Amino acid sequence: MTDRLYLYDTTLRDGQQTQGVQFSTQEKLRVAEVLDSLGVDYIEGGWPGANPTDSEFFDSPPRVRATLAAFGMTKRAGRSAANDDVLAAVLNAGTEAVCIVGKTHDFHVTTALGITLEENLETIRDSVAHLVAQGREALFDAEHFFDGWRANRDYALACIRAAHAAGARWVVLCDTNGGTLPEEIGAIVADVVAQAVPGEALGIHTHDDTGTAVAGTLAAVAAGARQIQGTLNGLGERCGNANLTTLIPTLLLKEPWASRYETGVTREALGGLRRASRLLDDILNRVPLKQAPYVGASAFAHKAGLHASAIAKDPSTYEHVDPSVVGNARIVPMSNQAGRSNLVQRLSEAGIAVPKDHPALPRILDRIKEKEALGYAYDTAQASFELLARAEMGDVPDFFDVERYRVITERRRNARGELVVESEAVVTVTLPGGGKRTSFFKNEHEHDLQDAGPVNALWQALKSDLGPHQALVEDMHLVDFKVRITNGGTEAVTRVIIDSADAEGRRWATVGVSANIVDASFEALVEGVTWKLLRDTGSV
Amino acid sequence: MTDRLYLYDTTLRDGQQTQGVQFSTQEKLRVAEVLDSLGVDYIEGGWPGANPTDSEFFDSPPRVRATLAAFGMTKRAGRSAANDDVLAAVLNAGTEAVCIVGKTHDFHVTTALGITLEENLETIRDSVAHLVAQGREALFDAEHFFDGWRANRDYALACIRAAHAAGARWVVLCDTNGGTLPEEIGAIVADVVAQAVPGEALGIHTHDDTGTAVAGTLAAVAAGARQIQGTLNGLGERCGNANLTTLIPTLLLKEPWASRYETGVTREALGGLRRASRLLDDILNRVPLKQAPYVGASAFAHKAGLHASAIAKDPSTYEHVDPSVVGNARIVPMSNQAGRSNLVQRLSEAGIAVPKDHPALPRILDRIKEKEALGYAYDTAQASFELLARAEMGDVPDFFDVERYRVITERRRNARGELVVESEAVVTVTLPGGGKRTSFFKNEHEHDLQDAGPVNALWQALKSDLGPHQALVEDMHLVDFKVRITNGGTEAVTRVIIDSADAEGRRWATVGVSANIVDASFEALVEGVTWKLLRDTGSV
Repeated sequence: MTDRLYLYDTTLRDGQQTQGVQFSTQEKLRVAEVLDSLGVDYIEGGWPGANPTDSEFFDSPPRVRATLAAFGMTKRAGRSAANDDVLAAVLNAGTEAVCIVGKTHDFHVTTALGITLEENLETIRDSVAHLVAQGREALFDAEHFFDGWRANRDYALACIRAAHAAGARWVVLCDTNGGTLPEEIGAIVADVVAQAVPGEALGIHTHDDTGTAVAGTLAAVAAGARQIQGTLNGLGERCGNANLTTLIPTLLLKEPWASRYETGVTREALGGLRRASRLLDDILNRVPLKQAPYVGASAFAHKAGLHASAIAKDPSTYEHVDPSVVGNARIVPMSNQAGRSNLVQRLSEAGIAVPKDHPALPRILDRIKEKEALGYAYDTAQASFELLARAEMGDVPDFFDVERYRVITERRRNARGELVVESEAVVTVTLPGGGKRTSFFKNEHEHDLQDAGPVNALWQALKSDLGPHQALVEDMHLVDFKVRITNGGTEAVTRVIIDSADAEGRRWATVGVSANIVDASFEALVEGVTWKLLRDTGSV
Repeated sequence: MTDRLYLYDTTLRDGQQTQGVQFSTQEKLRVAEVLDSLGVDYIEGGWPGANPTDSEFFDSPPRVRATLAAFGMTKRAGRSAANDDVLAAVLNAGTEAVCIVGKTHDFHVTTALGITLEENLETIRDSVAHLVAQGREALFDAEHFFDGWRANRDYALACIRAAHAAGARWVVLCDTNGGTLPEEIGAIVADVVAQAVPGEALGIHTHDDTGTAVAGTLAAVAAGARQIQGTLNGLGERCGNANLTTLIPTLLLKEPWASRYETGVTREALGGLRRASRLLDDILNRVPLKQAPYVGASAFAHKAGLHASAIAKDPSTYEHVDPSVVGNARIVPMSNQAGRSNLVQRLSEAGIAVPKDHPALPRILDRIKEKEALGYAYDTAQASFELLARAEMGDVPDFFDVERYRVITERRRNARGELVVESEAVVTVTLPGGGKRTSFFKNEHEHDLQDAGPVNALWQALKSDLGPHQALVEDMHLVDFKVRITNGGTEAVTRVIIDSADAEGRRWATVGVSANIVDASFEALVEGVTWKLLRDTGSV
């Protein structure tokens, strides 16, 4: 006997309150598709009338299986719900569901709204009834409900009773300021279920200001709530909303949740969870959080030596769920005397299928160990790892050799007495068959602010003439550059990791190490170009 | 009537299992200082004997108020604790406290250790008793305790009873795989308290694989546990450990915790929480997480229009705690009331005492805002912050000006056909009064592996002739160098932070920003020299 839980996604509304996040209409449509493929029950698209993007989104809404919801607020004081133009704009979006936020904390009613407690009750009743009369599924977001319950329990309960009696399908209890801890959320929801609104009509909306939004949501469900509001990747105002990317697998995979409840998310959709999370990051150009539960790149990375060897025998020894169920993968970083079977697995992730007794494997392991002792790191530099392995297997053609390079950076006053910074580079490469090419590039800081440094100058010079390979690197560009001082043997060295991308949407990372930051960067650059040529010449 | 909670930090041990994190010994010492300033009770420094860095750390341990702990494991099968060389290495570290991990899950005992359940009990008893006999405070980390309790409750309880009876000061219940949800953690800890070990001797160690490590910890404390294990910024294997940066303010500021418990963290130390969090990110060259509870840059950012206007009237309308209490600040876009009192406090930390109505304060605030928009960051670059403020107050003499510089890096084959990398630099400075000095430096990679790059060449050239100030910079050297790509206006720029030190043991950090990495480094270098001259010429 299982209860149905309903997932209400607000990535496109509350998620947009994240500092630095501003969806375009097109991006909203793409996110809606991603959410729909996961199988959430409701997609809240925004606040129609509040800004042009949200209005445009509702003007040509996405075709989704989920119920589309528009967000707004209760009617304003001094007019009826039917005569409130803000509420009318929300209704005009034409969505099946409409969610309106209203006050339940007495202090906010008298201070922020400046109306009497009774007027607020009437506001709630009239607004909800108006939505219902228009044939919509009505949701009432009870703002500051938990603070309100603590301040004036009877009044807070009266507010949500009013919404429910007026026909709200869902009354959503919002911990607006994010300050309520899970134990208290559970106790208050239990009180609500006993005294005011049945669990079948109750939703929960938490924020992560104490790092417990997910646990608070679970506590509310345990106490009876049946709708969960949250966002993908935990986007949202301040510290974010309850993270659906974390909650969904917990509800489907972990006990007692998996046996007690069902959701609209299928096992197949769950397998697309990691990808959905990455798609959202891509759309927003955010760096994926490595430590994210279930979907993060590190979520199943076993670095401790004791763990890695036990995992090889039986993954359940150090994994609470199977990573493939959420579309993720186990990582046993090479930086731990990783065994041969781990190497085989890492190679297969890089698209290199080799049997466990391949004669190159011990050589590859030795080579990795040598390089790591010099300061190299292959945790993230997957492309360099692949090149190292393929080189040991004789799979990397000799595309070009760098004969020499020279790069100059200069700060001086120009003829007008202004300070200018310039970088210029010359690179000489030899090509298989003996051809030699020398290329030059000069960059002036005052003319081109972006990438005006020596590494970019070297990159521009290198890519400007690679003979027969020239056309293949045209669409390659550098997207990130990370520098760290580390130990190489007994000396401090500089480790540079460069992320490259191309027009096909591929993104790859390479590493270089040297006592000289420019030389380390150049090594990573050359590895990046080589990886690209390996792909585009059809060598692999 | 309050109970004392003990905070046990494992940033330097379990935190080091974070993918991509590898502390140097020097970094470990700095992190230990940061932790000690917060007021944690225990600092676990690593596993002596497991790797050279951890051993080196314990060879010259930091001077801290906290109890230093070494980590290891129970004796191996087939020998006595007194004859186990791995355990001996841990004891030889000479720490007051020793924490050893052991099995409590029957499956792991028989499968991973390959011994009988009774042999494992004897292993626990003998190992703990050996630590106690050596006069150490013994901690027993009960690995996989929650999984073990579910699989074979009686045996799991027998294991921890054995550790407690053998004299362990603390029995720490570890949710090693991170899969146990808070409600279940609470129930199991309650069972332990009732049946096996009193709460005063119980610790809790959780992981964030379901996004509930903080809530799980709170549930364990509510059920009676009195020691909390965690890491700064939630570092740790896979998804990380329980985040002490989140737990500490919750325990001190939120009810019912604040009234029920006390910790070793003072209100003053709590005010340094945000800074401690940033210092760790800086040491590891990680990008601070904006959405981090309490300490994140977005934690008190109010983007929603309705929220921002209410906040202006009364911050408690949309804030669960006062941001200044954890050293953080409110961000209200469009109405930046950036705190003058915060600035006065920061200046006093830099040794500059000014009244709140000093006329330079608004200019300093404006200047910081301008520079931050360009990509500068003053969280850690305290010396650059001080220079900026003093410059606005007219307190920085004109020590020297850089007329021009030029730096060349070259890779080529030498006469013997070997690849060499060289850097050379020339710097021209003008001195007050009109003197001009030009200095040259050349560094060959093959001869001097260390610091063979362009930044070092510039530094060597700059310091080789500064006229009357020459003697004052002789003892200055660069100890760290951090590079990050960030946004400056609409363009990507490079931010460089350089840590310098001198013979008097002072250490200071300066920042430079430019589209050119060499130029950014040079700016930070010049600021570093200026700060040193300001001190050593007696100007301040």
